[in-house]
Amino acid sequence: LTARRRAPSAASASRRATRVRAQGINPEIRKEEGKVVDNVVVSELSKPVTAYCRCWRSGTFPLCDGSHVKHNKATGDNVGPLLLKK
Amino acid sequence: LTARRRAPSAASASRRATRVRAQGINPEIRKEEGKVVDNVVVSELSKPVTAYCRCWRSGTFPLCDGSHVKHNKATGDNVGPLLLKK
Ligand code: FES
Ligand code: FES
Repeated sequence: LTARRRAPSAASASRRATRVRAQGINPEIRKEEGKVVDNVVVSELSKPVTAYCRCWRSGTFPLCDGSHVKHNKATGDNVGPLLLKK
Repeated sequence: LTARRRAPSAASASRRATRVRAQGINPEIRKEEGKVVDNVVVSELSKPVTAYCRCWRSGTFPLCDGSHVKHNKATGDNVGPLLLKK
Protein backbone atom coordinates (compact mmCIF):
# COMPACT_ATOMS: atom_id res chain seq x y z
CA LEU A 1 0.00 0.00 0.00
CA THR A 2 1.13 3.49 -0.71
CA ALA A 3 0.91 5.81 2.27
CA ARG A 4 -1.94 8.25 1.75
CA ARG A 5 -2.10 11.61 3.45
CA ARG A 6 -5.49 11.90 5.14
CA ALA A 7 -7.55 15.01 4.68
CA PRO A 8 -7.47 17.16 7.83
CA SER A 9 -10.16 16.02 10.25
CA ALA A 10 -12.15 18.27 12.53
CA ALA A 11 -10.14 16.84 15.42
CA SER A 12 -6.80 17.72 13.86
CA ALA A 13 -8.07 21.19 12.98
CA SER A 14 -9.09 21.59 16.60
CA ARG A 15 -5.68 20.40 17.84
CA ARG A 16 -4.04 22.79 15.43
CA ALA A 17 -6.16 25.71 16.65
CA THR A 18 -5.31 24.81 20.24
CA ARG A 19 -1.61 24.74 19.46
CA VAL A 20 -1.79 28.10 17.74
CA ARG A 21 -3.53 29.70 20.70
CA ALA A 22 -0.86 28.35 23.04
CA GLN A 23 1.93 30.17 21.26
CA GLY A 24 4.20 32.73 22.79
CA ILE A 25 3.48 36.42 22.36
CA ASN A 26 7.04 37.76 22.41
CA PRO A 27 8.91 36.74 19.25
CA GLU A 28 12.20 38.60 19.80
CA ILE A 29 12.62 40.78 22.86
CA ARG A 30 15.40 39.80 25.34
CA LYS A 31 14.99 36.09 24.69
CA GLU A 32 18.13 35.45 26.74
CA GLU A 33 16.10 36.40 29.85
CA GLY A 34 13.85 33.78 31.43
CA LYS A 35 11.25 36.41 32.23
CA VAL A 36 11.26 39.98 30.97
CA VAL A 37 10.29 42.26 33.85
CA ASP A 38 10.89 46.00 33.78
CA ASN A 39 10.85 48.54 36.59
CA VAL A 40 9.69 52.14 36.44
CA VAL A 41 10.44 54.47 39.35
CA VAL A 42 7.47 56.73 38.81
CA SER A 43 9.02 59.70 40.62
CA GLU A 44 11.65 59.76 37.87
CA LEU A 45 9.22 60.08 34.97
CA SER A 46 10.05 63.25 33.08
CA LYS A 47 7.18 63.72 30.65
CA PRO A 48 3.49 64.35 31.46
CA VAL A 49 2.61 61.07 29.70
CA THR A 50 4.88 58.10 28.97
CA ALA A 51 3.62 55.11 26.96
CA TYR A 52 4.85 51.61 27.85
CA CYS A 53 4.59 48.73 25.39
CA ARG A 54 2.33 45.73 25.95
CA CYS A 55 2.49 44.30 22.40
CA TRP A 56 6.10 43.03 22.47
CA ARG A 57 6.73 44.57 19.04
CA SER A 58 8.32 47.89 20.02
CA GLY A 59 11.79 48.79 18.83
CA THR A 60 12.20 50.83 22.02
CA PHE A 61 10.82 48.26 24.48
CA PRO A 62 9.84 48.68 27.30
CA LEU A 63 8.62 51.96 25.82
CA CYS A 64 5.91 52.01 23.15
CA ASP A 65 7.01 53.21 19.71
CA GLY A 66 3.64 52.81 18.02
CA SER A 67 4.36 49.34 16.61
CA HIS A 68 1.09 48.07 18.12
CA VAL A 69 -0.71 49.80 15.22
CA LYS A 70 0.99 47.61 12.61
CA HIS A 71 0.53 44.50 14.75
CA ASN A 72 -3.19 45.18 15.20
CA LYS A 73 -3.70 45.85 11.49
CA ALA A 74 -1.81 42.70 10.46
CA THR A 75 -3.59 40.38 12.89
CA GLY A 76 -6.94 41.93 13.80
CA ASP A 77 -5.74 42.23 17.38
CA ASN A 78 -6.67 45.13 19.69
CA VAL A 79 -3.68 45.67 21.96
CA GLY A 80 -2.25 48.98 23.07
CA PRO A 81 0.11 50.59 25.58
CA LEU A 82 -0.08 51.45 29.24
CA LEU A 83 0.03 55.22 29.65
CA LEU A 84 1.76 56.55 32.76
CA LYS A 85 0.61 60.03 33.67
CA LYS A 86 2.35 62.29 36.13
CA LEU B 1 -11.74 15.32 -13.16
CA THR B 2 -12.10 14.89 -9.43
CA ALA B 3 -10.59 17.67 -7.38
CA ARG B 4 -7.45 16.43 -5.66
CA ARG B 5 -6.09 18.01 -2.50
CA ARG B 6 -2.43 18.76 -3.11
CA ALA B 7 0.13 17.77 -0.55
CA PRO B 8 1.39 20.80 1.39
CA SER B 9 4.29 22.43 -0.43
CA ALA B 10 7.24 24.16 1.16
CA ALA B 11 5.65 27.43 0.01
CA SER B 12 2.36 26.73 1.77
CA ALA B 13 4.19 25.62 4.91
CA SER B 14 6.06 28.91 4.81
CA ARG B 15 2.83 30.86 4.36
CA ARG B 16 1.32 28.91 7.23
CA ALA B 17 4.27 29.68 9.51
CA THR B 18 4.03 33.33 8.58
CA ARG B 19 0.33 33.38 9.35
CA VAL B 20 0.93 31.75 12.72
CA ARG B 21 3.51 34.37 13.66
CA ALA B 22 1.12 37.12 12.61
CA GLN B 23 -1.53 36.12 15.11
CA GLY B 24 -2.97 38.33 17.77
CA ILE B 25 -1.65 38.21 21.31
CA ASN B 26 -4.83 39.11 23.20
CA PRO B 27 -7.36 36.27 23.04
CA GLU B 28 -10.07 37.67 25.30
CA ILE B 29 -9.55 41.03 26.99
CA ARG B 30 -12.01 43.83 26.10
CA LYS B 31 -12.43 42.65 22.52
CA GLU B 32 -15.27 45.15 22.10
CA GLU B 33 -12.60 47.91 22.16
CA GLY B 34 -10.67 48.67 19.00
CA LYS B 35 -7.50 49.28 20.99
CA VAL B 36 -7.02 48.54 24.67
CA VAL B 37 -5.16 51.45 26.26
CA ASP B 38 -5.03 51.98 30.02
CA ASN B 39 -4.05 55.03 32.01
CA VAL B 40 -2.25 55.14 35.34
CA VAL B 41 -2.05 58.40 37.25
CA VAL B 42 1.16 57.59 39.03
CA SER B 43 0.56 60.05 41.90
CA GLU B 44 -2.44 57.89 42.83
CA LEU B 45 -0.51 54.65 43.21
CA SER B 46 -1.04 53.36 46.73
CA LYS B 47 1.44 50.51 47.11
CA PRO B 48 5.26 50.67 47.00
CA VAL B 49 5.19 48.36 43.93
CA THR B 50 2.30 47.70 41.56
CA ALA B 51 2.61 45.11 38.77
CA TYR B 52 0.90 45.76 35.42
CA CYS B 53 0.19 42.95 32.99
CA ARG B 54 1.89 42.65 29.61
CA CYS B 55 0.86 39.07 28.81
CA TRP B 56 -2.85 39.67 28.17
CA ARG B 57 -3.76 36.66 30.32
CA SER B 58 -4.47 38.34 33.67
CA GLY B 59 -7.86 37.95 35.29
CA THR B 60 -7.33 41.40 36.83
CA PHE B 61 -6.09 43.21 33.72
CA PRO B 62 -4.58 45.81 33.49
CA LEU B 63 -3.02 44.56 36.71
CA CYS B 64 -0.82 41.44 36.75
CA ASP B 65 -2.24 38.48 38.66
CA GLY B 66 0.66 36.12 37.98
CA SER B 67 -0.95 34.45 34.95
CA HIS B 68 2.22 35.12 32.92
CA VAL B 69 3.80 32.16 34.79
CA LYS B 70 1.29 29.67 33.35
CA HIS B 71 1.51 31.28 29.90
CA ASN B 72 5.31 31.08 29.88
CA LYS B 73 5.28 27.46 31.04
CA ALA B 74 2.69 26.42 28.45
CA THR B 75 4.36 28.15 25.51
CA GLY B 76 8.05 28.58 26.31
CA ASP B 77 7.57 32.32 26.24
CA ASN B 78 9.41 34.77 28.53
CA VAL B 79 7.01 37.62 29.19
CA GLY B 80 6.47 39.41 32.46
CA PRO B 81 4.92 42.49 34.01
CA LEU B 82 5.88 46.14 34.22
CA LEU B 83 6.55 47.07 37.84
CA LEU B 84 5.65 50.60 38.91
CA LYS B 85 7.60 51.71 41.98
CA LYS B 86 6.75 54.72 44.08
S1 FES C 1 4.59 49.47 20.51
FE1 FES C 1 3.84 47.92 21.81
S2 FES C 1 2.09 48.82 22.73
FE2 FES C 1 2.83 50.34 21.42
S1 FES D 1 -0.47 38.29 34.51
FE1 FES D 1 0.17 39.22 32.66
S2 FES D 1 2.19 39.89 33.09
FE2 FES D 1 1.55 38.97 34.90
